[in-house]
Amino acid sequence: MNIEMIRAAAQRLEGQARRTPLLSSPFLDEIAGRRLWVKPECLQHTGSFKFRGAYNALASMDEQVRKRGVIAFSSGNHAQGVALAARMHGVPAVIIMPADSPALKLANTADLGAEVITYDRATEDRDEIGERLSAERGLTLVKPFDEPQVIAGQGTCGLEIAQQAAEQGIETADVIVCCGGGGLTSGIALALEAEAPGLRVRPAEPAGFDDVARSLQSGGIERNAQTSGNICDAIITPQPGNITFPIMKRLCGPGLVVTEEEALAAMGQAFNRIKLVAEPGAAVALAAALYRADQIAGEDVIVTISGGNVDPAMFARALATL
Amino acid sequence: MNIEMIRAAAQRLEGQARRTPLLSSPFLDEIAGRRLWVKPECLQHTGSFKFRGAYNALASMDEQVRKRGVIAFSSGNHAQGVALAARMHGVPAVIIMPADSPALKLANTADLGAEVITYDRATEDRDEIGERLSAERGLTLVKPFDEPQVIAGQGTCGLEIAQQAAEQGIETADVIVCCGGGGLTSGIALALEAEAPGLRVRPAEPAGFDDVARSLQSGGIERNAQTSGNICDAIITPQPGNITFPIMKRLCGPGLVVTEEEALAAMGQAFNRIKLVAEPGAAVALAAALYRADQIAGEDVIVTISGGNVDPAMFARALATL
Repeated sequence: MNIEMIRAAAQRLEGQARRTPLLSSPFLDEIAGRRLWVKPECLQHTGSFKFRGAYNALASMDEQVRKRGVIAFSSGNHAQGVALAARMHGVPAVIIMPADSPALKLANTADLGAEVITYDRATEDRDEIGERLSAERGLTLVKPFDEPQVIAGQGTCGLEIAQQAAEQGIETADVIVCCGGGGLTSGIALALEAEAPGLRVRPAEPAGFDDVARSLQSGGIERNAQTSGNICDAIITPQPGNITFPIMKRLCGPGLVVTEEEALAAMGQAFNRIKLVAEPGAAVALAAALYRADQIAGEDVIVTISGGNVDPAMFARALATL
Repeated sequence: MNIEMIRAAAQRLEGQARRTPLLSSPFLDEIAGRRLWVKPECLQHTGSFKFRGAYNALASMDEQVRKRGVIAFSSGNHAQGVALAARMHGVPAVIIMPADSPALKLANTADLGAEVITYDRATEDRDEIGERLSAERGLTLVKPFDEPQVIAGQGTCGLEIAQQAAEQGIETADVIVCCGGGGLTSGIALALEAEAPGLRVRPAEPAGFDDVARSLQSGGIERNAQTSGNICDAIITPQPGNITFPIMKRLCGPGLVVTEEEALAAMGQAFNRIKLVAEPGAAVALAAALYRADQIAGEDVIVTISGGNVDPAMFARALATL
C-alpha cells in the first residue's frame, strides 16, 4: 500500500467517479466553534464513497479474471458500489447481503443489475455461500475494505480533500472520517500523509462499536462485543482490517465516539444547514465535530459524510431531532 | 441586460459563490426516460441560487451607496441571500418578510445578521413599510428578480451549466428552471444563448400559479389569480417581471406545469436518488422532467434544484410519497 497506488487509482477514476465538493455553513461553524468543512461522499455515484474503491478494484483486475465476474459481501453501500462498477465494466456481479439490510440498499443493488443473494445473519454462514458460488462460477471476491486496490480507490477522496483544503488555505486540521473496517480512513490517511501532512485523520465511530478507537489506544486489534443492534449499520464491523489497522496506527490521531442520538442530530443538521441526506453511519464524523468539539483542536475541522443511503423512516427520526 | 454583465458577475462571484456540480442518477434516468442532469443550487451558500444575484447586486453597487445598507422584500430565499451578501460586505441589511414565511427562513435570515421586519400579508402594505425605512435610513432596495445585476448574478448558474453540459458531451437539451419572477430563468437563458445555443430554457411552475407559462403562450404579461395557497412558496409571484419577461419571451420554450403532489414526489426522489434536500418550489423542474416526460424531447434534460430551505414537517410529507 503506497501513495502511488492511490495516484494510479485517481487516474482510473478520472471521469468515472465524481469529484465531490467541500461544503460549509456558518450555522455549522457556530455549533462546532470553528470552521467546519464537509466532504459529501453521499453525492458520489451510488450514494457513498464505496464506488471509488469498487471501481478501482475492478479497473485494476486482469481482464480475463474480471470477465468471469465479481462477488461481494455487503450490507449495502459496498454492494451498490460493486454492482455499478461491474455494470460499467460489463461484467456480472453477485452480491451476498444480510436479509435484514435496509430495504433501499437491497432494492438498489438489484436495480443496478447485480444478482442479490440474501442470507440470515443468525443461522447462515455467508463465507460458505460465497466460497461455493466463487468456485462454481469463477467469481473474484471484492473485499469491502481489507484489499489494497479498494483502499487505494477510497484514498482518492483524500487526494481531493488535500487539494480542496489547500484552496481554502487550510494547512493544519483534524480530518474526521466515518470508520467501519478502515478502508476510507486508511486510504485518506495515506493520501494526506503525502499531499497534506498538516492534516491528521481521526476515525469516528458509534458508541459500543468503537473497535478502531480502542485498537488505536491499545496498539493492537480489538474486537467489538457485538456486530449488530446499532442504527449506524454501514460502519459496523467486527474489528479493523489487517491491512488497514497498521496504516491507521501509524497515521491517525485518537478515535472519536458518538451516540446514536448524536448521529441522528447530525443528520438533522446536515438536512437543515447544508441540504444533504446523510445516513446514520455517515453522520458520525459530523456528529463528532459538532458534539465533541472539546476533543478537537485547531481553527478548522474537516469531516466526511460518507453516504446517504437511508430509508425514509430512519430519516424521519433525524428530522424529529430538529 | 447582456452576456457581458453575466461574465462580469461571474468574476465578482469567483471564490465567493459556490460552483455547484452537475449530478445524475441511473434511477432518475429510468423514470425520466432519458439522461437527467441536476444542477443543485440547494448546495449554494444560504441554500439557494439567490445568493448569486444578491452578492452581485451588492458587489456592483457604488461603495458609498452600499455602505448605508440595503433592504429587501422576500418570503425567504432572497432574504437569506441578501443577508449573507450584506454581511460579507460588512453593511447593514433590513429584510421585510411576510409573518407567515417558513419558520426556518425567518430564523436563518435573522441569524445571518439581518434586521428582520415581518408584516401581515392580508392587512399591511409591504411597499409602504419599505419606502418609509429606505427614506429614513438611506437604504438601497435589492429587488428579488426584476433588477439587471440580480439577473446577471443568477445567470452565472447558466455559465456553469453551459460548461458542465459541454464536459458531458451534451449539445442539445431542454434546461428546465424553477420559475417565480423569472430572475434565474432569464439569467440562465441569456447565458446559454451566448455559451450553449443548443440548450433551451423552459420555465417550470406549480399548477394554478403558471403566470409565466401563460404569458409565454399569450405573448403578453399574464397575472396569477392568487398569490398564496401553494406549498411552492419560493416561486409564487403575481406575474413575470418587466425586465425578465421580454428575455424569457425571446429565448424560452413552452412552460411546464406540475401539481403540488408531483413537487412533493420529486422531493422524495431527490432525497432517495441523489441525496439532496429540495424545497417544494425548487422541485418543480425535477417534477416536470420526471412526470411530464411526454412534453420534453431529446436524449438529455437538465433541471435546476434551486433551493433547499424547507421545514422538517414539509419534508416529512415528501418522504411519505416514497
